[in-house]
Amino acid sequence: MERSAAVLDLTECFERIDELWSPKIVAQVGDTQVKLAKVQGSFDWHAHEREDELFLVHSGRLKLEFRDGEVWLGPGQMYRVPAGVEHRPVAPDEVRLMLIEPAGTRNTGDRLTERTVEAEWM
Amino acid sequence: MERSAAVLDLTECFERIDELWSPKIVAQVGDTQVKLAKVQGSFDWHAHEREDELFLVHSGRLKLEFRDGEVWLGPGQMYRVPAGVEHRPVAPDEVRLMLIEPAGTRNTGDRLTERTVEAEWM
Repeated sequence: MERSAAVLDLTECFERIDELWSPKIVAQVGDTQVKLAKVQGSFDWHAHEREDELFLVHSGRLKLEFRDGEVWLGPGQMYRVPAGVEHRPVAPDEVRLMLIEPAGTRNTGDRLTERTVEAEWM
Repeated sequence: MERSAAVLDLTECFERIDELWSPKIVAQVGDTQVKLAKVQGSFDWHAHEREDELFLVHSGRLKLEFRDGEVWLGPGQMYRVPAGVEHRPVAPDEVRLMLIEPAGTRNTGDRLTERTVEAEWM
């Protein structure tokens, strides 16, 4: 039976991320992946047609803009963006965040842009 | 299109949990649920035949015992227990933890015991 290789320390994992807006996969449970990302600035408006996306902030303050409003998330706060809902993450200062979403979820949703990246395992 | 009702603050959510070893569902992404639990003491040995289970410690120190070893998790540390692996969580002092696992995962795994609870939404 498979055993996980090691304990993952979130702070250490974030330290290994250099690139902004480029989520790294750290764990998978069934078809769902846990990803970590450093973000700063404004991302592109996008929606994920089929995938729910859960944002959990580790440090910093993240704004999620919607077409009809916005929410702010601080450390230890989370918010689920349901499939199909257009959103834009905005981080005035650096934010470290965890994403919980189906494997294969693209960071720019249903669009391919210059900011589209294929999530890789850390 | 559905919108999540509110921002969830993990610390506030944990404050609302009274019962030990009784995970509460706080979010669902596809078929995967995020649950929060307060635990203290030793739980029952169990395995989940089909479900991977991810433990992420929010506060305190959690020991995961396996038949062939153990790991300790502190705040911000996580560990994935793959399906089929027998394990026993042990918390010398109170631990607040997040579980990420498929919907329907039973806390006592493949056994029904006096500690079996049906996870409810918070």
